[in-house]
Amino acid sequence: MSATAPVTGPEQLAAVLDAAGPGLRRMIDRAERRLEEVAASEGAALAQHTTSTLAAGGKRLRPMVVFLCAGEAESDALVGAGAAVELLHMATLVHDDVLDRAELRRGRPTVYAAAGTGAATATGDLLFSRAFAELAATGSPEAVRALSEASSALARGELMQREDAWSASVSPARYLERCELKTARLFEAACRLGALLGTPGAGGADALAAFGSGIGVAFQILDDVLDVAGPPERTGKPRGTDLLDGTVTLPLILARERDPELAALDLKPEVRTPAAAAALCDRIAATGALDDSRSEALRHVAAAKKELQRLELDKRQRTALELVADGVVDRYG
Amino acid sequence: MSATAPVTGPEQLAAVLDAAGPGLRRMIDRAERRLEEVAASEGAALAQHTTSTLAAGGKRLRPMVVFLCAGEAESDALVGAGAAVELLHMATLVHDDVLDRAELRRGRPTVYAAAGTGAATATGDLLFSRAFAELAATGSPEAVRALSEASSALARGELMQREDAWSASVSPARYLERCELKTARLFEAACRLGALLGTPGAGGADALAAFGSGIGVAFQILDDVLDVAGPPERTGKPRGTDLLDGTVTLPLILARERDPELAALDLKPEVRTPAAAAALCDRIAATGALDDSRSEALRHVAAAKKELQRLELDKRQRTALELVADGVVDRYG
Repeated sequence: MSATAPVTGPEQLAAVLDAAGPGLRRMIDRAERRLEEVAASEGAALAQHTTSTLAAGGKRLRPMVVFLCAGEAESDALVGAGAAVELLHMATLVHDDVLDRAELRRGRPTVYAAAGTGAATATGDLLFSRAFAELAATGSPEAVRALSEASSALARGELMQREDAWSASVSPARYLERCELKTARLFEAACRLGALLGTPGAGGADALAAFGSGIGVAFQILDDVLDVAGPPERTGKPRGTDLLDGTVTLPLILARERDPELAALDLKPEVRTPAAAAALCDRIAATGALDDSRSEALRHVAAAKKELQRLELDKRQRTALELVADGVVDRYG
Repeated sequence: MSATAPVTGPEQLAAVLDAAGPGLRRMIDRAERRLEEVAASEGAALAQHTTSTLAAGGKRLRPMVVFLCAGEAESDALVGAGAAVELLHMATLVHDDVLDRAELRRGRPTVYAAAGTGAATATGDLLFSRAFAELAATGSPEAVRALSEASSALARGELMQREDAWSASVSPARYLERCELKTARLFEAACRLGALLGTPGAGGADALAAFGSGIGVAFQILDDVLDVAGPPERTGKPRGTDLLDGTVTLPLILARERDPELAALDLKPEVRTPAAAAALCDRIAATGALDDSRSEALRHVAAAKKELQRLELDKRQRTALELVADGVVDRYG
């Protein structure tokens, strides 16, 4: 597996930062420093696991969404909220890597690979705990509630995914419900936290939350498209990893609707090797299911952007949020 | 492995309930119903995992401590706090069972055994999330902070335990620090939550927190003694499970100080079977290390009870708290 490229390209991030103005850059830098402080506060050996997870970086898309939804506000509470959503996100990644026995993430060894199941489970728990500690420090019970609801939804989505593993009867509606739970609720919470702790009147919390939910669903669909489409040298992982672990995603569901032979296939015994998974990816792509899945993602982006029209936003804020929405589906064109 | 007996005997619980009066029984019943509601709110398949974890029961010792530290108060916020500490405790048990590959807990199949690693990790995460949701509903950021600090400490203790696995150089001080993190901080948080949300003036929060910390350390030491001493038909697990997974506890540390041959032994290759673990338990017991460990636990109980003397407590509250303290080390005489 090669070193991974960031999922959202640097060019999109630069466009958002340009549109939003210097306040966003300042807030992202503060959140980054806060994450470093959290890692450093955890003492020797475990700081190492936490730090490697934090340092593996990523695009800090969720904190960015918090700050964009907060308007012009720049407070410690907002920095804490941005750090909290990122900590929760990282907690789920660390646990996912245990479950998937993943050796690398973004080109670095996972906590699981470096330190084993026990240390990785505990590190994830620690990141969870620290996420809530950050929000407790904001003094807002509503903020804690927003994150705990997202966190419960994430776990429910994870359970749903495992329950549906290898199932031939997952409907598009059920798939979308899982995207909602597993991914969209945390984006929704990021938007709510921004609205809650940001400039009063910066935006209606419900419309912003709906915006977050829409881009979250689109984000997950595109992730699932990239798992089939690759290319591996851009996504940083082989094609078909979802197929190998039985995760039924929209491209497969739509391909089965279009290819009766594929629909009749029992995938569990058929897809056991990376080569078999890659061959199945080609077969899914041949049905046109990837384009249809992308279109579904675009519909969610369009719906999300429509929510923004209900709000009186400052022009820079609106433009930056629209760029974020476009960015989640404009990964590798 | 036989069906397990509760760790604290019904006779101790009955004594605490008698001493505390009917308010405690009411609050424990309310917390139990709240836990059932939480499980039921999680939808079909996962409710099953959550429910089996909740139903496996246990003594609800931590909620009891919350309520006892709250004095005469009986509020929804306190019920939520009691449920929250129990949910967090259960989350850690579900994750521990994954790491220990434990098939049974309290005589019932664990979530890990019933549904696998993925479902158990997600169920633990869900229980974590719901714990914080319960506290968010109290409207008290201090309450959220108390739990998140305990939760971080728990994870740090777990990491420390894994780091020290099979180590021949764990000092008693380091062992006690681990007990503090892994076990005592949650008892401490239970006491703080009671003081915070309970009858004003029901007790000084710091002294109650110190009481909780003391009984928590004693509780962990006694757990570790029982792992060596058994008997299995009372503890519900074979002797020496800690030895089998490399967890270095006080009985082993003290036995090594007294038995130079034992100190020189490399345990990892020696202790691979339950029979070898049981033989090592006998050898540890022969050094007198179990009695010395019990004495250490009793010292922490005595220190905890001394903290209570600093407080102006109602007589029933004081008696009940003293009985709880005695109960944590008076398991199986």
